[in-house]
Amino acid sequence: MASASALAMPVRGWSRQSSFRPSINAARLRNRLERLSTHGRPAGGTFADGVSRVAYSVADLTARAFMIDEIKSADIVPRIDAAGNIFARYGGQTNQPAILFGSHIDSVPNGGNFDGDLGTFSALEVIQAVQTAKIQTKHPLEMVLWAHEESTAFGIGTAASRIVAGDLQAGDMDRTWNGMKRSDAIKRIAGTPDQIETAIRGKGAWHSYVELHIEQGGTLDKAKIPIGIVEGIVGIHRYDVVIEGFANHAGTTPMGERRDAMVAAAQLTLEVREIAAQRPGRQVGTVGRIEVEPNSPNVIPGKVTLSVEFRDLSEQVLRELDEAIQTRGAAIAKDTNTTITCTLASVNIGAPATSGVQAAINTAAGVLSLQTRRLPSGAGHDAQQIARLCPMGMIFVPSVGGVSHSPRELTTWDDCARGANVLLGTVLELDRLDSV
Amino acid sequence: MASASALAMPVRGWSRQSSFRPSINAARLRNRLERLSTHGRPAGGTFADGVSRVAYSVADLTARAFMIDEIKSADIVPRIDAAGNIFARYGGQTNQPAILFGSHIDSVPNGGNFDGDLGTFSALEVIQAVQTAKIQTKHPLEMVLWAHEESTAFGIGTAASRIVAGDLQAGDMDRTWNGMKRSDAIKRIAGTPDQIETAIRGKGAWHSYVELHIEQGGTLDKAKIPIGIVEGIVGIHRYDVVIEGFANHAGTTPMGERRDAMVAAAQLTLEVREIAAQRPGRQVGTVGRIEVEPNSPNVIPGKVTLSVEFRDLSEQVLRELDEAIQTRGAAIAKDTNTTITCTLASVNIGAPATSGVQAAINTAAGVLSLQTRRLPSGAGHDAQQIARLCPMGMIFVPSVGGVSHSPRELTTWDDCARGANVLLGTVLELDRLDSV
Repeated sequence: MASASALAMPVRGWSRQSSFRPSINAARLRNRLERLSTHGRPAGGTFADGVSRVAYSVADLTARAFMIDEIKSADIVPRIDAAGNIFARYGGQTNQPAILFGSHIDSVPNGGNFDGDLGTFSALEVIQAVQTAKIQTKHPLEMVLWAHEESTAFGIGTAASRIVAGDLQAGDMDRTWNGMKRSDAIKRIAGTPDQIETAIRGKGAWHSYVELHIEQGGTLDKAKIPIGIVEGIVGIHRYDVVIEGFANHAGTTPMGERRDAMVAAAQLTLEVREIAAQRPGRQVGTVGRIEVEPNSPNVIPGKVTLSVEFRDLSEQVLRELDEAIQTRGAAIAKDTNTTITCTLASVNIGAPATSGVQAAINTAAGVLSLQTRRLPSGAGHDAQQIARLCPMGMIFVPSVGGVSHSPRELTTWDDCARGANVLLGTVLELDRLDSV
Repeated sequence: MASASALAMPVRGWSRQSSFRPSINAARLRNRLERLSTHGRPAGGTFADGVSRVAYSVADLTARAFMIDEIKSADIVPRIDAAGNIFARYGGQTNQPAILFGSHIDSVPNGGNFDGDLGTFSALEVIQAVQTAKIQTKHPLEMVLWAHEESTAFGIGTAASRIVAGDLQAGDMDRTWNGMKRSDAIKRIAGTPDQIETAIRGKGAWHSYVELHIEQGGTLDKAKIPIGIVEGIVGIHRYDVVIEGFANHAGTTPMGERRDAMVAAAQLTLEVREIAAQRPGRQVGTVGRIEVEPNSPNVIPGKVTLSVEFRDLSEQVLRELDEAIQTRGAAIAKDTNTTITCTLASVNIGAPATSGVQAAINTAAGVLSLQTRRLPSGAGHDAQQIARLCPMGMIFVPSVGGVSHSPRELTTWDDCARGANVLLGTVLELDRLDSV
């Protein structure tokens, strides 16, 4: 880096035509991700054994301290908001809104080394690359480490980015998880739960938000395409399904006289797959949870509860899937002499990525001669929340074999570096725009 | 009864042509079953609330004491064997083997008032009817109350009738259940675990064995036929099935790339039904237990374990079902990109009812102008064990709606009385035969 910074002269903004092209430091990025991986690593394990770095755990605390040290080493000042999110701002004109970029470093139990980690440390790389290249941006550049993205603690809807986007209810800080109060959890990460409302940001708080993340699916890896331009984060419709048949003796009840709730559940499971797979598009449908009563080998199941989940970018498509599952459910109930109630238990509205941010990503990838593919994000991300406050976009890099939320999660170091450089280029592209 | 016994003259044996026909006392039978139902009844409940009279519980102990009192009131002497079974013998020639008949009074948790209870108290009625009618049988008549038929305590294979039939392994008495040693449980019901081997009886221990029981299925009730002649007790083949797919993110994994263990489990569940239902015959197939991992709405199931159970009278049919499930399982594994292992975990060999005992039941029902139907017993019974020692037969009476192992279990008092009278007639028919 020393030689590169010696060569570079202060530049105003960024030019794609320039023969000089700022770049992130791939070796440093890798080194930081490897050092991060020791926080939450299983005892006696290696990098390949992944991490358990659940939010608010000791591993999360030491990893955050490591990140703060790295931010400070770049001569920028970390700030922790009331919800525990870590921000750090560099350059720009004080009367301009900042361009925000970042991700998270908490993990699911038995998670991998790339989900969130890559986007968070790449954000620091972006600022350091701009520093090194002595580029003066119009907009301040702001990196962020979102606290508690995986929502392992305190359940769905408790990611700290949601507070920033305004999801805060009376009593939220009093929820408990594993014997810990949420306010105490936030204090552990140096948040200030007593002033939690100061973490809320309004519409237009930022110029734009970009997040680099691993795909967590196999589309890019399979197609050998290094950069994904996210079209949006899918909406999720989740159902609680209750099937009631009649529990009876498995030996004495003839096949024709059974009201077998498990047979109905099996039919419904296959219908969910059929409904999702039969139409063109990238919608998915899953039966992930199932509970059988009385769950004994010699008793015909009398009751089954199960979860059905559909995901798609389009609310219209999701509504059509809703209708299909209700119709098929009614037919199965009739056929199996059971009752089936499908209750839409939660709706997570999808967030389309702003076309201007998508275009900036496309340009940045083009400058680096990297092939791109547009695709939806099937997983939720902090970007989904921040889309409520400002223009939003996401960059995906390939996940080998599509594996994620697993120690086997893997993105090659070359793909990590490509992604970080596209993030850098995207931020500088966005800086050219007064509004996205 | 006083007038009936005053009218009756001592009779040698029994004649179907006789205008005099001995009969059980239906009112006394009902009264005893109603009094029995208070042992294990839920607090504040009524007869309709059923019983929890698990073997070795206080309710089981007091119910057994009640039965012993009733036996003594009939001027016969109860004897408790080393395993805790209660026998009581009446009349006959000392050099002849006894005709044995009876059932059990322990129940499943939240069981009903007829399963076992009817056959046990009807056995006492048979002896009292013979006493009253002053019939002198050639063979001693022996009633039995089998201990611990439901095998709720200590698990499958621990019914006390199994000990009588010779199923006894070193260490059996040391097994524990709910902190209780099996030897201590047997002591609670006045058995003598230190001499447990004295409970074992050899082949030919009895002339024959007959058990009256509720059907526990809906065949007789549906057909409005009062008496079932059991053709045999079905064999059971039970499998432990393990399906391994790959747990992955339910949002990011396209439908075509999933290795969803739950989809494979659903297909297998429907195949089990199909395999059992498609061929003529009365075989049944059930998936009663299912466990999903990780069992989370947003994760594609990576592993499913489930139970498959087939039951039929014919071992040949069961072997054909075995073959079918293995073949279909392999096809499903291929189709869903999962691995499926179906392990035959337990085989319970069926017991055909002796044709001579079936004929005796048929004759006894005919004398009473009661319609009969031959049918298999889909449930296990003590008769299955005793079939290894002597000719065996079972009489079924209708279960309203086919409900059993439930407080809603119901057999009308008229059907109870009909069944007990057929048991009486059958025992007297069998007494005419030197060998069955």
